[in-house]
Amino acid sequence: MRLLTLARDLQRRKARERQGLFVAEGIRTVEELLAAPLRPRGAVVSDALDATPRGVALRERIAAAGIPLLEVTARDFATAADTDAPQGVLMVAEQPVLALDALRERLPASDVRLLVLDGVQDPGNVGTILRSAAGLGAAAVVALPGTVDLWSAKVVRSAMGAQFRLSTVGDTVEALDAFLAAERIVLWGADGAGAPVGALASTAPDRLAVAVGNEGAGLSAALRGRAAGLVAVPSTGLVESLNVAVAASILLYELRPASLRRPA
Amino acid sequence: MRLLTLARDLQRRKARERQGLFVAEGIRTVEELLAAPLRPRGAVVSDALDATPRGVALRERIAAAGIPLLEVTARDFATAADTDAPQGVLMVAEQPVLALDALRERLPASDVRLLVLDGVQDPGNVGTILRSAAGLGAAAVVALPGTVDLWSAKVVRSAMGAQFRLSTVGDTVEALDAFLAAERIVLWGADGAGAPVGALASTAPDRLAVAVGNEGAGLSAALRGRAAGLVAVPSTGLVESLNVAVAASILLYELRPASLRRPA
Repeated sequence: MRLLTLARDLQRRKARERQGLFVAEGIRTVEELLAAPLRPRGAVVSDALDATPRGVALRERIAAAGIPLLEVTARDFATAADTDAPQGVLMVAEQPVLALDALRERLPASDVRLLVLDGVQDPGNVGTILRSAAGLGAAAVVALPGTVDLWSAKVVRSAMGAQFRLSTVGDTVEALDAFLAAERIVLWGADGAGAPVGALASTAPDRLAVAVGNEGAGLSAALRGRAAGLVAVPSTGLVESLNVAVAASILLYELRPASLRRPA
Repeated sequence: MRLLTLARDLQRRKARERQGLFVAEGIRTVEELLAAPLRPRGAVVSDALDATPRGVALRERIAAAGIPLLEVTARDFATAADTDAPQGVLMVAEQPVLALDALRERLPASDVRLLVLDGVQDPGNVGTILRSAAGLGAAAVVALPGTVDLWSAKVVRSAMGAQFRLSTVGDTVEALDAFLAAERIVLWGADGAGAPVGALASTAPDRLAVAVGNEGAGLSAALRGRAAGLVAVPSTGLVESLNVAVAASILLYELRPASLRRPA
């Protein structure tokens, strides 16, 4: 049962950070994890997994890969599950350890796009943002303090595997500062009072980081002060703001690298 | 207690549709409702509302507006609440009744943008989409069968008041067909295999409806067959797709009316 106890323990952020592990739950998420270059530690399954051919196939793939597999009752599974109606499969895996220093080697030579999360707190929003960042050509996502843990079960689930392939880093504002300066990356901040992003897209810096802030409060004073410019998604007065995942995605889209601008 | 029983009953879609009513829950959502041109029937509050000055002020506004106000215990409130940690206020109000025929009079003379939801099922996604539609200049949102009820508590909450000001219509594919033909509105569908939307934005029809489909299955065959063209948000191969609310929002942004294209 040690794997079950571990999975249960990893429901806490502190335990995830201390151990450098996370839990992926559900058929789709575990499938994505198996296809990604991350290192699994073990899987916990219950009878519920056998309810569909896809679940049965997944169980066989886990076994064939030589990954430790623990069978538990549905009741025991529920104690480690994050969902109300578990599909009967979860996998513990190692978080890809990545400091800003290591990120340096992974940046493309040109047309660099980074996304900075400055206190984004809703796990569903952050998962959606990671999916957009991977899909819209961001080289990495940097989570600053105050942002929800990128490896929480809810973020992992709503990212739908995106973060298994995307570089993600958690670090301080000071470390980000030093990194951007050393890499000559310009920082822009998202703010409703900023310049409309559409007019700036064609003249955006080749190496650019875009920061989005908290759902209610927006960018922190620290980030606002550091940003070389503020950009906005133009909107009618009918709503106070767009959802932060939507705003971040529109900015990433409008500022996307040239590889996504060529006709398909 | 009749108001509490009513609010509880309105947790069911059939009850909402039969009575033409819905429930807005939480301080922010009820504030938005009071500021919108909808007709409230009554409010239910508990002690929890007095925990903040903003809650106290809201209670006073409801009373001052002459809206029937029922005080209940936290336990009774929870039976009608949709959230796990209720803020102690909900309001029952009339759904704005709007058929496609009535929508006709509300369309702008030019630069018409409609968003069609073809089987979008997650309430959070639909709420986010309504917020984007209101913010990005759509004249209305049309929900086809298979789409989650736009007036469910979760949709109302995640729309953050957007649908109180935006025209929304639920109708059949056939009725939509007739409406688009009569109004000479061109229908485009969102599909990963479509043409990149960026290349089409400058030549988009003046009167345009864009349909987005189900989270997993995409557009229905019915809509796909009716669409004059398919458009896509270009994306890397790192993810299977973008979140549907993100994709819908990027399409609305890229195809936004001229009023949102002028520099701020």
